[in-house]
Amino acid sequence: MSQFLNSKENAVTEAIDGVLVASGGALSRLDGYPHIRVVVRSDWDKSKVAIVSGGGSGHEPAHAGFVGKGMLTAAVCGDVFASPSVDAILAGILAVTGPSGCLLIVKNYTGDRLNFGLAAERARAYGLNVSMVIVDDDIALPDLPQSRGVAGTLFVHKIAGALAEGGADLEAVSNAARQVIAKTSTIGMSLDTCTVPGSPKENRIPDGHAELGLGIHGEAGVEQIEYSGVKGAIAAMVERLSASMDDKPHVVLVNNLGGTSVLEMSVIVHELVNSAIAGRIAHIVGPAPMMTSLDMQGFSISVFPADKTELELLCRPVTMPAWPGVTSIAPAAVIALPDGLTPIAPLASRHEPTREFLTDCCTLLIGAEKDLNALDAKSGDGDTGSTLAGAARALIEALDRLPLSDHTQLFRAMGQELSQTMGGSSGVLLAIFFAAAGDGASSGLTIRDSLKAGLSRMQEIGGAHLGDRTMVDALSPALDALDQGLAHAAEAARAGANLTATLLHAKAGRAAYINAKQLEGHVDPGAEAVARLFEYLALRVDATGEQPDAQPAGVRVTG
Amino acid sequence: MSQFLNSKENAVTEAIDGVLVASGGALSRLDGYPHIRVVVRSDWDKSKVAIVSGGGSGHEPAHAGFVGKGMLTAAVCGDVFASPSVDAILAGILAVTGPSGCLLIVKNYTGDRLNFGLAAERARAYGLNVSMVIVDDDIALPDLPQSRGVAGTLFVHKIAGALAEGGADLEAVSNAARQVIAKTSTIGMSLDTCTVPGSPKENRIPDGHAELGLGIHGEAGVEQIEYSGVKGAIAAMVERLSASMDDKPHVVLVNNLGGTSVLEMSVIVHELVNSAIAGRIAHIVGPAPMMTSLDMQGFSISVFPADKTELELLCRPVTMPAWPGVTSIAPAAVIALPDGLTPIAPLASRHEPTREFLTDCCTLLIGAEKDLNALDAKSGDGDTGSTLAGAARALIEALDRLPLSDHTQLFRAMGQELSQTMGGSSGVLLAIFFAAAGDGASSGLTIRDSLKAGLSRMQEIGGAHLGDRTMVDALSPALDALDQGLAHAAEAARAGANLTATLLHAKAGRAAYINAKQLEGHVDPGAEAVARLFEYLALRVDATGEQPDAQPAGVRVTG
Repeated sequence: MSQFLNSKENAVTEAIDGVLVASGGALSRLDGYPHIRVVVRSDWDKSKVAIVSGGGSGHEPAHAGFVGKGMLTAAVCGDVFASPSVDAILAGILAVTGPSGCLLIVKNYTGDRLNFGLAAERARAYGLNVSMVIVDDDIALPDLPQSRGVAGTLFVHKIAGALAEGGADLEAVSNAARQVIAKTSTIGMSLDTCTVPGSPKENRIPDGHAELGLGIHGEAGVEQIEYSGVKGAIAAMVERLSASMDDKPHVVLVNNLGGTSVLEMSVIVHELVNSAIAGRIAHIVGPAPMMTSLDMQGFSISVFPADKTELELLCRPVTMPAWPGVTSIAPAAVIALPDGLTPIAPLASRHEPTREFLTDCCTLLIGAEKDLNALDAKSGDGDTGSTLAGAARALIEALDRLPLSDHTQLFRAMGQELSQTMGGSSGVLLAIFFAAAGDGASSGLTIRDSLKAGLSRMQEIGGAHLGDRTMVDALSPALDALDQGLAHAAEAARAGANLTATLLHAKAGRAAYINAKQLEGHVDPGAEAVARLFEYLALRVDATGEQPDAQPAGVRVTG
Repeated sequence: MSQFLNSKENAVTEAIDGVLVASGGALSRLDGYPHIRVVVRSDWDKSKVAIVSGGGSGHEPAHAGFVGKGMLTAAVCGDVFASPSVDAILAGILAVTGPSGCLLIVKNYTGDRLNFGLAAERARAYGLNVSMVIVDDDIALPDLPQSRGVAGTLFVHKIAGALAEGGADLEAVSNAARQVIAKTSTIGMSLDTCTVPGSPKENRIPDGHAELGLGIHGEAGVEQIEYSGVKGAIAAMVERLSASMDDKPHVVLVNNLGGTSVLEMSVIVHELVNSAIAGRIAHIVGPAPMMTSLDMQGFSISVFPADKTELELLCRPVTMPAWPGVTSIAPAAVIALPDGLTPIAPLASRHEPTREFLTDCCTLLIGAEKDLNALDAKSGDGDTGSTLAGAARALIEALDRLPLSDHTQLFRAMGQELSQTMGGSSGVLLAIFFAAAGDGASSGLTIRDSLKAGLSRMQEIGGAHLGDRTMVDALSPALDALDQGLAHAAEAARAGANLTATLLHAKAGRAAYINAKQLEGHVDPGAEAVARLFEYLALRVDATGEQPDAQPAGVRVTG
C-alpha cells in the first residue's frame, strides 16, 4: 500500500465517512454500506427538483464534495473507477425525489449510462418523474460521437443545482443542463499516470513527453506529445479547444487531476490567460481539484460560453469548500514600490578618535582571520574568519561616508553597511544588532544599554540563548561587566568564550547539527572574535591612557 | 522539466501572476519583479493593523492564497524553499503599514527569521510600528528548542487576521498570535519526497515505509517507520501529538502536503476521528492543501485548543477559496434506506400460448449460442452467444413466476429478470428496453409502439444509432416493418443484420475499439440474434397458422 488508505476494499466507504464527519452535519449518507454508498444533503425536504449525480469513485471531490444547497442533492458513489450499481442509484433517487422530480447528471461512460439509465427506469415504474442528461464534454476524440464526460460536468452541476434551488421545474432544469452540456468542451493533459489502489503504477509516459486528451480513469491519452514546458502544453490544448469555441466570452474551469502542485496550477493559469484564447476567457473557476483522477499529475481545461443567465447561476455562492467559486479574469494589478527601500544615507561626519578606534578594531579582526577560520572548521564550514575580515575591510573603506560624530546614526549606518557587505546569517545578525542598538540610542538609552538592546534583539531573531555556543556567550557577559570597565569586560568575554569549548550540545546556528565529540575543546569562533576584540580594547585603553568617558562615540562605555 | 512549469527561474513570478489573474482583482502585487515578489490586498487602506507573512515559495496556497480581508494583508514570496530578501520584505512592510502598525508572522527557519528580523529593524528605523512573531509548531524534534514552523501557521494567520480586521491594536494582535503559537502542535508524514524544480527527485523512502516528522522543504523526516496502512500511520502521529494536547476540545487542521489524492485525504480524516485523540477533536479545518511542500505525497495534522474567542475568530468567514473554513466534527449521519428497493414482484399468471412462445424464443437463442459466440469473437470477447443463452435459460426457469397473461406487467417483469440474470452492458440495455416498453404499454401505447418506445430509450441510454453496428441495426427496421407482418419484419431484420458486416467503423459498444479490417465481412452478433429471432417467428407463424392478432401477449404485433 503506497497510499494513505487501509485497503482497496474499504477506501471508498472510509473516504465517504471522512467527508461526512468533516461536513459539520451538512451531509448524511444512506444506510446500506458497502453496497449502497449514497451521500445526501442533510437539510433536504424534497420540495424542489432533486439533482443526483455520481459514478465511479477516485474523482474526489466529485461528486460527494459538491452535495449541498445549490448544487447536488445526492451523490451515488461506486468503487474506484467503477460505476455504482443500479440498486445504489435507485436508492439515491428514491431517497431524494419528491413531487418535483429528479434530474440525473451522468458522465458519458457506458457503465454509468446503463446503470443510471436502468435505475431511472425502475424509479419511473414507481411513478417518479426522473430525467437524465449525459455529459460528454471531452473533445480529445473528435471523431467519436461518444465523447467522455469529464470536468465540464461541474458546470452542469452548478447551473442545474442553482436553478433547482431557485425553484425551477424539472423540465427547465433538464433543458438548462442539456444546454450547458452542448456548449461545454474539455481537454486534459498529464505528465504521469495515476496510482490505482491495489494495482501497480503503470509508467507509460516517457521522459520529455506528456499525454494529451485523457479521460479521468487513468486510461492513455489520445496522443503522447513532446513536452518541454507548460507554455507549449497549453498551446497544444488551446489549439484543440479553440476549434469548439465561438467568439463569446467564456468561463474557463481549470481542474487539478489530483497530484499537480498548487504552484504548477497557478503557472498553468498564467499561461492560459496569455494563450491564444486569452481574449475569449472572461471568468475562471479554479484552479482546484474538482474532477480528479486519483493522484494524477495532470490537469484539464474546460471552456463554457455562459450567457448572462448562466453566468449568474454559476456565480451564486454555495458553502461547499470544494467549489472554488467564479472570479472574473483581471489583469495582474501592479502597485508602485513604496518609497524608502533605498535607505536614507546618513550625513557623513568626521571624528578622528572614532575613525582610529574603528580602524583598530577592524585591523584586529582582519588579523584574526586565519585563527577564526581554523576554529570554525571544527564546527562549520571554516569561513567565520574570512567573513568577519571581509566585513572589516569593507567597513574601513566605508569610513569616509559614515556619520562618525553621531553614535546613534553611526550604529544604524554600521548595521546598514554590514547587511550589505557581510554574507551569511552572521552578517544579518550583526546588522540587526547595530540597527537595534541605534534604535536604543535614538530613544535615549545609554550606549551600554543600547548595545544590550541590540544583543537582546539579535538573540530574539537568531534564537540563541546563553550556553548555546555562539558569540552571545562572550558578548553577553562582556556587556554585563562593561560598567566596571573594559578590563572586566574583557575578562568576562574571555571566560565566556572559553566556556564554549565545553558546550557540546550547540542549540543554535550551524553547530547545532554537529556531533558533540567534534566540538569538544574548541572555542566557538564567534565568541573567540568577541573575546579578542574586548581583550584588545582593554589593552588599547591602557596604552592610550584614555578614560572610558573619553572613548570615541562608538564605544563610550558609561553612556 | 517533469512539471507544469516553464523554468525554475520563472516559476514563482508566473505562479504569482496566475494567482493574481484568478483573484478577480482582489489581489495586487508590488512592482519590482523578479527581486520583489509581494502580493497585497487590493482593497487595503492602511487603516488597521497589517498582517504580513511569507517565506520561501513551494508552499502554495501559502502564503499568497491567504491574502485577503480577514487574513493576510501581504505575502512576501521567496524562491522555491528560499527566504525572500530583506529588501523584498521591507518593501512589503512599507507598502501596507499605516499608523496602526504591522505584525510579521514568520515561520521558524533561520533565513526567514533573519531576513524578516532585519527588514523589521529597517522598517522601525522609518518610525513604523512593527511586531514579529515566530511560529514553531512542529513537534517532530521535541529536543530542539528551535522547532520548525509548518501548517499550524494557518491558525496564526486566521486569528491574527480576524482580530486585525476587527480593529484590534498591534499589541492585542501580537499577543493573540503568540498565544496561538504557544498552543499549536503539528506533525507531518509522507510516503514520497517532493519534486524540487530543477533538481532530480530523491527516492529516499523505501517501499513499505513512511517518513514521520517532516518539515515542508523536502528534508528527511525525523524517522522512517514501517508503513502498512493509514490506520497505523495516524496512530503513530497521534501518539506524538497527544503528549502536547490537554483535555480541552481542539481544532484540528488537516493539511495536504501537495500530492496526496483527495480520496486519501478523506480516509485520513476518517482515521483521525477514530483515533486515540478523537474525543479531543471538536472542529476541523480541511482536509485541504494549505501549507504544501510542492507535490509531496504527504499530509500534516495540526492541533490547537482554541478557547471560545479564538474559535469565533477562526470561524469568521473569509472569501479566499484556499481557506476551507471550520466545521464542527459530527458523527456520520445515516439515513434509513428508502422503501422500494426490492422491486414489487408481479403477480404470476398463466397464459399457455405466451409460455410456449417465450419458451420457443429462448430455445432458439440457446441453440444459437455457438454461432453467436463465433461472430462475437471477431469483434469482442466471444461471449454474446453464451450471455444470451444464459439469460434464455434463466427466463425459461422463471416462467412460473411471470405475469404471462398481462403484457404490460410481463414486459416490466422481463426487464427485471434480465437485469438480474444477464451480465454485461447488453443485459442492462435489454432490461431498459423491456422496462421502457412496459412503461409505454401502461400508458396506452400499442405493443408495436411500446416496443419502439423501448428501443428509443435503449438507444438513448446506450448511445447506439442506426449504422453503429449493434443489434439496433436489425431491431429498428424489424419494428418499423412489423405492421406489415412478421415476414416483412424478418426480412428487414435480416437485411439490417447483413448490413452490419459492411459497417467497418463501429461507433458504439465494444467493437468501437476494434480495427476496421477485423470487422469486415462479419455480422454483428447482437444484430444476428435479432434477425434469427424474427426469422424464426415468421416461420413459426406459418407453421402454427396463427394470425398476428392471435399472438400471445408478449408479441402481439399490431397492438
